[in-house]
Amino acid sequence: MELKIKLLKWSAGLPVAMLNEKTASKIGVHTKDRVSIKTLKKNSKEISTIIDTIKGLVRENEIAVSSELKKRLCLRVGQKVDVKLDLTPKSMVFINKKLNKKKLSPEEIDEIIKDIVDNSLSEPEIALFISAMYNHGMNMKETISLIKAILKTGNKIAFKNEFVVDKHCIGGVSGNRTTPIVVSICAAAGLLVPKNSSKAITSAAGTADVIETIAKIEFSISELKKIGKKTNACMVWGGALGMVPADSKIIKVEKMLKIDPEAQLLASIISKKLAGGSKYILIDIPYGKNAKVDKTKALHLKKKFEQLGKYFNKKLKCVLTDGSQPIGNGIGPALELVDVLKVLNPKEKGPEDLEKKSLFLAGQLLKMTNRQGQNEDLSKKNKSKKIKGIQLAKEILYSGKAFEKFKQIIKAQQGKLNSIDSAKFKKHILSKKSGEISEINNKKISSLARIAGCPIDKFSGLYLYFHVGD
Amino acid sequence: MELKIKLLKWSAGLPVAMLNEKTASKIGVHTKDRVSIKTLKKNSKEISTIIDTIKGLVRENEIAVSSELKKRLCLRVGQKVDVKLDLTPKSMVFINKKLNKKKLSPEEIDEIIKDIVDNSLSEPEIALFISAMYNHGMNMKETISLIKAILKTGNKIAFKNEFVVDKHCIGGVSGNRTTPIVVSICAAAGLLVPKNSSKAITSAAGTADVIETIAKIEFSISELKKIGKKTNACMVWGGALGMVPADSKIIKVEKMLKIDPEAQLLASIISKKLAGGSKYILIDIPYGKNAKVDKTKALHLKKKFEQLGKYFNKKLKCVLTDGSQPIGNGIGPALELVDVLKVLNPKEKGPEDLEKKSLFLAGQLLKMTNRQGQNEDLSKKNKSKKIKGIQLAKEILYSGKAFEKFKQIIKAQQGKLNSIDSAKFKKHILSKKSGEISEINNKKISSLARIAGCPIDKFSGLYLYFHVGD
Repeated sequence: MELKIKLLKWSAGLPVAMLNEKTASKIGVHTKDRVSIKTLKKNSKEISTIIDTIKGLVRENEIAVSSELKKRLCLRVGQKVDVKLDLTPKSMVFINKKLNKKKLSPEEIDEIIKDIVDNSLSEPEIALFISAMYNHGMNMKETISLIKAILKTGNKIAFKNEFVVDKHCIGGVSGNRTTPIVVSICAAAGLLVPKNSSKAITSAAGTADVIETIAKIEFSISELKKIGKKTNACMVWGGALGMVPADSKIIKVEKMLKIDPEAQLLASIISKKLAGGSKYILIDIPYGKNAKVDKTKALHLKKKFEQLGKYFNKKLKCVLTDGSQPIGNGIGPALELVDVLKVLNPKEKGPEDLEKKSLFLAGQLLKMTNRQGQNEDLSKKNKSKKIKGIQLAKEILYSGKAFEKFKQIIKAQQGKLNSIDSAKFKKHILSKKSGEISEINNKKISSLARIAGCPIDKFSGLYLYFHVGD
Repeated sequence: MELKIKLLKWSAGLPVAMLNEKTASKIGVHTKDRVSIKTLKKNSKEISTIIDTIKGLVRENEIAVSSELKKRLCLRVGQKVDVKLDLTPKSMVFINKKLNKKKLSPEEIDEIIKDIVDNSLSEPEIALFISAMYNHGMNMKETISLIKAILKTGNKIAFKNEFVVDKHCIGGVSGNRTTPIVVSICAAAGLLVPKNSSKAITSAAGTADVIETIAKIEFSISELKKIGKKTNACMVWGGALGMVPADSKIIKVEKMLKIDPEAQLLASIISKKLAGGSKYILIDIPYGKNAKVDKTKALHLKKKFEQLGKYFNKKLKCVLTDGSQPIGNGIGPALELVDVLKVLNPKEKGPEDLEKKSLFLAGQLLKMTNRQGQNEDLSKKNKSKKIKGIQLAKEILYSGKAFEKFKQIIKAQQGKLNSIDSAKFKKHILSKKSGEISEINNKKISSLARIAGCPIDKFSGLYLYFHVGD
């Protein structure tokens, strides 16, 4: 049926269309059924999407589309399109295949991922895919296919530089805001660190939330490249780059389901690093009681990550770190930023655990790249080959060079440092007993911070004055 | 936050709320997050629901609700309500428990079903529950808890009559429209047959779709009882009775996922029969190549159904029938009705297979109830105890008494018989070769009929002139 495009300012967060009830009935669809939409041009792209029906708001000769769908099909308001009833996509057969414990071919995984990006699969159908992966797993071959499929459906960034480095943490530890420090040290050492980070999913803050407190984080790929050229680094929000739209949609459903199948965890991280153009990748796997994984699982993940790094021909290293308690004092976007600034600023004293871990991670990356940067000053010293990565990291941090680099990056991202407000309401909670702290539960700390307003209220959160052993 | 109720004429098919983007951000929720809504009255019911956000359509001091949500909370337009951010419901923990192969307690299953009915669980979360049941099954105790939980959250019908009978078919066979014939025969024999049926889910037509061609099918429970008193029977749409809202929502998601876990299949059928007040239940399990189940699975289901019948203290019988090919000639609402009328009308000749199967099923029900009805004429003959159920069924059918009963029921449901239109477009497809038909695939026949327009276009469908062996 020929219908006219109407734009509904409706934030569905995904390509969605709405039809008048009468129109829907004429086409033969109900709410949550699928229709195919294509423009009247020859060889027009066709998209299959889930519809809602509505009375009144949409006229009988119209189809209202979300901004996401308008963009996907390059539509303009008032344009005529052909709308037809669409049947279940073939990818549902493949999802059922996995549900019945069978292996999927690369083509089958491609089809599923393509349909996820096109909104041809509804959220419950994506939930079934996640659940099937969770229950029956995916072998290394399938995981590689999943990564390739995710990469095919998104944007990629390529750099000519030899030393493009990235670090990633699998998460689960509150506070743990090492990224801005590691990025600043490595960039000051001459490495290119085009860091794109996520916003908080279940935690109190992601690196993107923290940086957003003082700077812009949404940039296009070409803007990101410009910032990288100017400062050797950036700290932007990955979501705005359109690199892994399939992963974003899967994560959205995973967040509802509170499960994260291993194959998807591996594919999510590796696909982001590959799309981001990284050549040296350091993966931080915190383990222990109260962490996301125990030691056995951490070692297992390390092995899988290293296999994938080898397959995709990247220098990839995994480090297992202590994930048994929060790192740093602040939990929440602005509070974590304050910790970061204290560590970066040679005139102040930041949380020791945060400084130590950041130096360790930066040192690892400097070692992986043989500490050779474009920074003349440093490369001279590198030639002696006696300085370990971590020593170089210390030198850069303590000299204030990392802090200077951080300020450059924030400035390039249209931010400034002197603008950190503090929260309107504060309350000190004192322990009623004296004694030694034996345990701090990461999950409970995150929940508390989220109840306080994290990550939406940037200045909300918790400040821990003490750690385990104090 | 205090907001005013606005009614959005939006057919979401479930309780749904929409907030202005700015309001959502103030409460701290994103699209597809959960909020709790309650009126300002003391001890007000609180409901947890998933929200969408929208620009423009809803004002900042408003919350737009779907008609379903308005009804659930007994709201009126302009009424003030308190809207708050809500966290993940406890039932997600129980769903994850099943996903990890653990058994669920009756209380845990209650909580899941309650949250499904309240729209506290999103469709992807319901999909995870279905997938967990599909992967790890439920034992008899859990299945019984599931049935009880579904019954608790819906309306029930009770009859004082001794002989309240019902038949149910697990489906999968095209055409197979025995219900109107069986209902008419049994009602004519004095049994009470308050039949509520479903509309087509994946088939070309359900009994409700067929009856809707000539009569009204949406009635309230009290109207249903009145019709039953007048005619001993009815053939209405179960969806309008609000008996098993949890089951309706689960089926909606199952339909998207194309999976039907056994525990849910059992619970769906048994809960409907119990809510409908049936005391004698006949379950038809068609099996064979091209049917829903093979013989092993059919025998397994029979055992489970009989265990459940025993537990709930109902006379329940399962019959295994031939499901290898379509039954009757017409496939589609109006075309199946034509077959039914031909079988009922003693002056016409209907499809032999449909007549034979209907007589068999009616005979089974008459036998289960010792063929004793309130119909004096028949009860005299019953006393001889020599007439088998099927012979009594034949007598009632061939004498035209069943046809009379059918006309009474249709009249009581505000319909009339002389109004069956035929389709606007017809095409005969002739076989190009002569020979014997060796196989007819039920699934493909259903798909073809649905492509032709079934079940929405009542007069669309297929007419099979020949069957296997012809």
